[in-house]
Amino acid sequence: MSSGEKEEMRKFKGPKEACGVFGAFGHEDAAKLAYFGLYALQHRGQESSGIVSSDGKNVYEHRRMGLVTEVFNEEAVNRLPGHIAIGHVRYSTTGSSVLKNAQPFIASHAGRTLAIAHNGNLTNARTLRGELEAKGSIFQTTIDSEVIVHLIARKIHLGLEEALVRAIRKIEGAYACTFMTEDELIAFRDPNGFRPLCLGKLNGSYVVASETCALDLIEAEYVRDIEPGEIVIVNENGIKSIKVKKQHGRSSFCIFELIYFARPDSRIFGCNVYNVRKKFGEKLAEEYNVDADFAMPFPDSGNYAAIGYCRRSGAALEIGMIRNHYVGRTFIAPSQSMRDFGVKVKLNPVHGLLEGKKVVIVEDSIIRGTTSRMRIKTLRDAGAKEVHMLVSCPPHRYPCYYGIDFSTKGELLACRNSLEQIKRYIGVDSLGYLSLEGMIEATGLSRDCFCLACFTGKYPVKHDGEFSKLCLEKGD
Amino acid sequence: MSSGEKEEMRKFKGPKEACGVFGAFGHEDAAKLAYFGLYALQHRGQESSGIVSSDGKNVYEHRRMGLVTEVFNEEAVNRLPGHIAIGHVRYSTTGSSVLKNAQPFIASHAGRTLAIAHNGNLTNARTLRGELEAKGSIFQTTIDSEVIVHLIARKIHLGLEEALVRAIRKIEGAYACTFMTEDELIAFRDPNGFRPLCLGKLNGSYVVASETCALDLIEAEYVRDIEPGEIVIVNENGIKSIKVKKQHGRSSFCIFELIYFARPDSRIFGCNVYNVRKKFGEKLAEEYNVDADFAMPFPDSGNYAAIGYCRRSGAALEIGMIRNHYVGRTFIAPSQSMRDFGVKVKLNPVHGLLEGKKVVIVEDSIIRGTTSRMRIKTLRDAGAKEVHMLVSCPPHRYPCYYGIDFSTKGELLACRNSLEQIKRYIGVDSLGYLSLEGMIEATGLSRDCFCLACFTGKYPVKHDGEFSKLCLEKGD
Amino acid sequence: MSSGEKEEMRKFKGPKEACGVFGAFGHEDAAKLAYFGLYALQHRGQESSGIVSSDGKNVYEHRRMGLVTEVFNEEAVNRLPGHIAIGHVRYSTTGSSVLKNAQPFIASHAGRTLAIAHNGNLTNARTLRGELEAKGSIFQTTIDSEVIVHLIARKIHLGLEEALVRAIRKIEGAYACTFMTEDELIAFRDPNGFRPLCLGKLNGSYVVASETCALDLIEAEYVRDIEPGEIVIVNENGIKSIKVKKQHGRSSFCIFELIYFARPDSRIFGCNVYNVRKKFGEKLAEEYNVDADFAMPFPDSGNYAAIGYCRRSGAALEIGMIRNHYVGRTFIAPSQSMRDFGVKVKLNPVHGLLEGKKVVIVEDSIIRGTTSRMRIKTLRDAGAKEVHMLVSCPPHRYPCYYGIDFSTKGELLACRNSLEQIKRYIGVDSLGYLSLEGMIEATGLSRDCFCLACFTGKYPVKHDGEFSKLCLEKGD
Amino acid sequence: MSSGEKEEMRKFKGPKEACGVFGAFGHEDAAKLAYFGLYALQHRGQESSGIVSSDGKNVYEHRRMGLVTEVFNEEAVNRLPGHIAIGHVRYSTTGSSVLKNAQPFIASHAGRTLAIAHNGNLTNARTLRGELEAKGSIFQTTIDSEVIVHLIARKIHLGLEEALVRAIRKIEGAYACTFMTEDELIAFRDPNGFRPLCLGKLNGSYVVASETCALDLIEAEYVRDIEPGEIVIVNENGIKSIKVKKQHGRSSFCIFELIYFARPDSRIFGCNVYNVRKKFGEKLAEEYNVDADFAMPFPDSGNYAAIGYCRRSGAALEIGMIRNHYVGRTFIAPSQSMRDFGVKVKLNPVHGLLEGKKVVIVEDSIIRGTTSRMRIKTLRDAGAKEVHMLVSCPPHRYPCYYGIDFSTKGELLACRNSLEQIKRYIGVDSLGYLSLEGMIEATGLSRDCFCLACFTGKYPVKHDGEFSKLCLEKGD
Repeated sequence: MSSGEKEEMRKFKGPKEACGVFGAFGHEDAAKLAYFGLYALQHRGQESSGIVSSDGKNVYEHRRMGLVTEVFNEEAVNRLPGHIAIGHVRYSTTGSSVLKNAQPFIASHAGRTLAIAHNGNLTNARTLRGELEAKGSIFQTTIDSEVIVHLIARKIHLGLEEALVRAIRKIEGAYACTFMTEDELIAFRDPNGFRPLCLGKLNGSYVVASETCALDLIEAEYVRDIEPGEIVIVNENGIKSIKVKKQHGRSSFCIFELIYFARPDSRIFGCNVYNVRKKFGEKLAEEYNVDADFAMPFPDSGNYAAIGYCRRSGAALEIGMIRNHYVGRTFIAPSQSMRDFGVKVKLNPVHGLLEGKKVVIVEDSIIRGTTSRMRIKTLRDAGAKEVHMLVSCPPHRYPCYYGIDFSTKGELLACRNSLEQIKRYIGVDSLGYLSLEGMIEATGLSRDCFCLACFTGKYPVKHDGEFSKLCLEKGD
Repeated sequence: MSSGEKEEMRKFKGPKEACGVFGAFGHEDAAKLAYFGLYALQHRGQESSGIVSSDGKNVYEHRRMGLVTEVFNEEAVNRLPGHIAIGHVRYSTTGSSVLKNAQPFIASHAGRTLAIAHNGNLTNARTLRGELEAKGSIFQTTIDSEVIVHLIARKIHLGLEEALVRAIRKIEGAYACTFMTEDELIAFRDPNGFRPLCLGKLNGSYVVASETCALDLIEAEYVRDIEPGEIVIVNENGIKSIKVKKQHGRSSFCIFELIYFARPDSRIFGCNVYNVRKKFGEKLAEEYNVDADFAMPFPDSGNYAAIGYCRRSGAALEIGMIRNHYVGRTFIAPSQSMRDFGVKVKLNPVHGLLEGKKVVIVEDSIIRGTTSRMRIKTLRDAGAKEVHMLVSCPPHRYPCYYGIDFSTKGELLACRNSLEQIKRYIGVDSLGYLSLEGMIEATGLSRDCFCLACFTGKYPVKHDGEFSKLCLEKGD
Repeated sequence: MSSGEKEEMRKFKGPKEACGVFGAFGHEDAAKLAYFGLYALQHRGQESSGIVSSDGKNVYEHRRMGLVTEVFNEEAVNRLPGHIAIGHVRYSTTGSSVLKNAQPFIASHAGRTLAIAHNGNLTNARTLRGELEAKGSIFQTTIDSEVIVHLIARKIHLGLEEALVRAIRKIEGAYACTFMTEDELIAFRDPNGFRPLCLGKLNGSYVVASETCALDLIEAEYVRDIEPGEIVIVNENGIKSIKVKKQHGRSSFCIFELIYFARPDSRIFGCNVYNVRKKFGEKLAEEYNVDADFAMPFPDSGNYAAIGYCRRSGAALEIGMIRNHYVGRTFIAPSQSMRDFGVKVKLNPVHGLLEGKKVVIVEDSIIRGTTSRMRIKTLRDAGAKEVHMLVSCPPHRYPCYYGIDFSTKGELLACRNSLEQIKRYIGVDSLGYLSLEGMIEATGLSRDCFCLACFTGKYPVKHDGEFSKLCLEKGD
Repeated sequence: MSSGEKEEMRKFKGPKEACGVFGAFGHEDAAKLAYFGLYALQHRGQESSGIVSSDGKNVYEHRRMGLVTEVFNEEAVNRLPGHIAIGHVRYSTTGSSVLKNAQPFIASHAGRTLAIAHNGNLTNARTLRGELEAKGSIFQTTIDSEVIVHLIARKIHLGLEEALVRAIRKIEGAYACTFMTEDELIAFRDPNGFRPLCLGKLNGSYVVASETCALDLIEAEYVRDIEPGEIVIVNENGIKSIKVKKQHGRSSFCIFELIYFARPDSRIFGCNVYNVRKKFGEKLAEEYNVDADFAMPFPDSGNYAAIGYCRRSGAALEIGMIRNHYVGRTFIAPSQSMRDFGVKVKLNPVHGLLEGKKVVIVEDSIIRGTTSRMRIKTLRDAGAKEVHMLVSCPPHRYPCYYGIDFSTKGELLACRNSLEQIKRYIGVDSLGYLSLEGMIEATGLSRDCFCLACFTGKYPVKHDGEFSKLCLEKGD
């Protein structure tokens, strides 16, 4: 496969979430809970997986590149004893894709072990790292989580709680973290609440996870969301909550979690994700009127909006492309003598269904547009007469500085292209985006609850300008 | 995981198809074509994968336990040069699950290499093997494909074509095979045509595959099905067809291919699988009237009938369980201290959708019933008030002797249980099966075209009584 | 590494022995005994390792490319239960280096499993295979052991013992074999006794091995050698000996086993190998008078003759080259910018010792001369002023057809070169070979006991002309 | 294998050296040089291997548990481009046996990468680490090399050279290090010169290595030893030497390097190791007069003293135990039903040689005595009538705090036992140790040059009392 083709393959999966985090305290198989929790959060990061556990005295770790089920086997989990554990699945946002950057990040300080799992992006990581280095700190990774641990270590003589509070006062941006020492589990979320983080209970033990689907799998009871700006500390003495930073009156929930990232069976920001997506589709049906033989999603991410769209519009729903369930990690490229099978390796069109038909695609979002372009070409090759597309959010015009991996303007198709240009690029007969208002209405929450920066360019937290994913590498 | 739990896990995926076969002649990257062809046929067998290629002089092979994308990487495919190749994906029907039984089976005889890839089950393999051993033959595997090669070798002094014809006259049962020597590709299908096998063309080269989805992926043009009882020989001199055994006036297409096995984007037995499945759902809507809030499939196998059902009945379609896309090969079991997460590892219910609702499940088939039982329990735990189930085929009451892995009566839920007992076992409020007539009508073909033995017990080809998968092991 | 360099690396280790075989009957951990036995016989073959075991009913196998300690771990051995086992370590002589040719070779016939481990070369394998194929036999491997199993299977209706006797009457050449069925262990050795094979006892159980060093490791008691032309059958009824072929009055013990192949701590052909090698050195001292500062071997194979030489001649013994104990399987090649470290990767010269010195090397044998040439260059680079070489056998002029891997004349340095030419090629100041008479005398046995064909060209068993290792591949 | 047996296996190899270090500057394949250099230094550490390289801008690393040839393949070395490299092989002394402790240790600070490879033990690491943590430093490993990097980072604003000098002024104990940044190679050795470190030249490039055998393999020219207390800095501007700490008038060369650790073909501390060891044997012959049939070493470590002993005493030299060249990393244990093969897995006695004989073993040293005890038992089982032992150094009575892995008194056989008790424990008929004076005389250097603490208890550098290998773990 040429590197260009590989790039295409990589982009198949759309924008990548920062990470998923998990924590458990008080369960005799804490690491096993973490394993299942991370398994349920796998969609939030497929690059590396890691769990750190503690039996109250010793800390154990296992981190590797790969999916949860690849990284952990029975033996690996059994080498992680104890009643406390945190875990992390990661797709790189800050920090490059190498093993040393696999989380949780662990360090030891004065006989104590500190471990952190972080979802999100600090917006002042570079500045803070510079300050720490000026005081003599050395760094092992390029992940901004290491900065948080340094900040805590430097004040830990004041007690862990005070050190935490002081560290959190210094960091800015998006962070939903689980943190642990030998005998405590801590969870904290930034004052804007960019990323979801919820608290659950399982018999007597506490669990924390990025999404409720992790609680569901381990059959933990959902208690409540960790609030923006809240620190929750769980230890032998029970559970305790601290509000560190004053909240700015309004939150900045990432609306892209609802559009694409979170699992449809999760409940985040107080919303049922499945229902919100279906409503996006209903809103599309209200805003557009497309004449087509049937509507179809690109499975599975577009399924829910497609169902809503068909329900409201009365359009027939079909599954015009079939997912191959056996897509492997490594895939051999066609040779020069073959045509590029491209997208069909993952989704194969149903010829009998498409021939001579007018089709409307209901899609969750268009980021770079490369995948859409290829898939639409495949549909046309399979005989579709007309292909229309409805997208369940507005055009993505601005990069995200809070943890979503489409950080540069150059990568965003809608950044420099008009609707007409986009239509031509991806090759559809017509193209409609859901309006900002329609999208917000569908959530049932007020506009003030959300960070809409990727659509509006209005960033709720100031950031150090446009910077690449590798900003902490080489310090420049 | 206890072995019982593992067994459950294994059964998640439902009945297993025998195998998928592929062949190519005249393409400079024949093995690469086979790789993509097998990739598209992966649903027909996930236990082992193998390709044999020839450059006209030397024969190369690579066979391993595992999925196509696990068994082959760029390097492995590059070590398979030549313009001829056959390939095989396998789930064990005859022969146990060990490497030596991975196909294609290869042997050398008098300076010639003979390789075969076989989908189906010979019904007189045991008898033939006994006869061969009495003449001094020794065996390497427990797969009945080895019997075919022995038969061919014993008559090859009469010429390959004559040897083939004589071998095929001796074997009985189900076989859709690709076969090769250093310089020929041969495909043959039993006179009943139990299993599908089609011929395609790609520029100047010929390809043969179990299903058209393999032709689609490699962008080969579908030419026609290999007919029941036909041998197709492709070599330097072109393509040649021989009709070996007289067809019995009627075919015995396996209807379970249409119900469950074949990919929905394939065209087999002259039918568009996607459309047939949708029609099964429509027929269900005609035969049953269930009062429910919405209908849902167990994704993805039930999707198509569910769409048909909703279309015809007007019921709302929902996706009440979400597939986890990251299900790994090895999975760690919950500990004693945890409840059994069982089915949720693969499919998670959408709580917000199910709570307090009356649900009708549209399912393709019920074989052992264990998976259905677990999934229905999960739906109830997630709050479903009523769960009804409609199945898009009649009850499976008889084992299959022609290549489907539910060979013993004991494994079939409907074999010893009444409708009422099945209903209670799987835990639904009501249960309806599609009628035999409704099912046949949906296919658009006549009843005479199909083998319906698993529903009716009328076997089109006599078999050696009930025998287990391992009948060729230890010769007993 | 260029392929030429790799070839050099491969040749470092000198000529390769055919194989080592082992068998055990009546021990509760028969496979574990085989593991240790093969471990002790590893010097006889490093390409593949395999064990087959039986518990009296079922047969278990594990064969892989690699050393015994690489191929087997605790888990692999535990999957080989039973009280009967045979094992094999292999360097390819007949048959190419691929997994399918790993021994023991196993086949099933009429409900019975037959397994064989073979050391040696059949000289009429090609003829026999042709006859078998004419009768319809198909072949899985290119090893001549498969021929033996076919021959046995064809007559097994007469009883195993009779079938064995008839098979052995047909095969010619060198064979020291262990063979087993579900309930018997059999060992047999060709009438010439080319390869060693001994019988031992361990508590109540019997063991068979190529060399006594295998008995030593498992602390079995040496009983006696399996005699040339003898079949030993061990089963529930005890042990039984049959003499199949009349012995030709004289044996043909491979003298190269004493010179190089067998381990010095073994006792074979009634000789203590260590003592014989020391005597070779003593004989060299008697035949040659070299003026040097000291004598040294190339460790470890030359150590024993060097000790004998120094003892008799009074020369000082030094270890002028030090073995690196960590030589790995894969080794990275120097880049173009570096000089070729060649031989030093394995043996490093001791500079302080060699500078300005006159050295005499006592070496076991020179086959191709490439390794000697490189090593001598290394000694000169390290400062040696004069390098003389004494070799503890006569010049190798003729290929071996009985199991030693220097089968073609072209590979033998002494085949086409005069003493003077050899001296110049390997770069020594003087060169002396032990005389044939001196060598024989050192063994303490009569000339009639040995096959001396590699020195004299007089072959004790007729052979099918010069043929390559791959003679059974492609049947030509 | 029981853990006790494993422990025995581990002890087979005698005391373990701390580490081997290597560095190269100015060679286009610096990492490949490091690969070969480490390969030659493998005897100094077999637990982990690592190389860090730089192309002047970027730094690349590869570190794993395992031997050099296991850790590196062609691909891994090719991913380490650049003209600067340092490398490390490690057996744990300080720090436990886990991947994160594999060296070189790397950190980044203010946009600069600092990497270090360290042989030896700091005696004030614990104190320094405490001071650093009090200032807020966090730690990743338990190796004391991390302390050195922290010290350098804290002063690097004064320039690297000044930072180095200040760091070195703070650290105490044994250290022979290679260190690098993106554009410099630095080597430094403690003022006592406990561990060897030498400088070489290869065409225009500089190399540094623990022993000259590494220079030999890569055909670099030996220039001189890095002097005790010297820092050598190599960069674009050439080479520069700084003397940091005043030397105490006398050095403290580790005499155990000469006795056992260094390779015999190396030249360290100005001595030819091979010759010194031979002289140890000669001195033994002068000090003892043992009546025996022959003398033998335990190969290979005892070979050199045995040669010297036989030369001087006139005793016959034999190789009474044969090394198995195929000892694997993992080894399966005998079952309960077998006797423990123990030592024979590695060294097999030559029965024919030993039976009824009086044998004198010339051995380099006795540390724990467990291996000697087992081997002597094996010799007696093989028939030896009398076994005497001569040891080429005095009894080891005191632990080493400078990098040798026999840090606790409890492990030293001679610590609590009289000569008579040792004799009985290891099972010899007589036992003689070389006198301290004899040993020193054999080296040709004065007593003042050496650290003799393991024999005399007089430690040249004060240490923090008896501490375990894990003293830096958990900070206690």
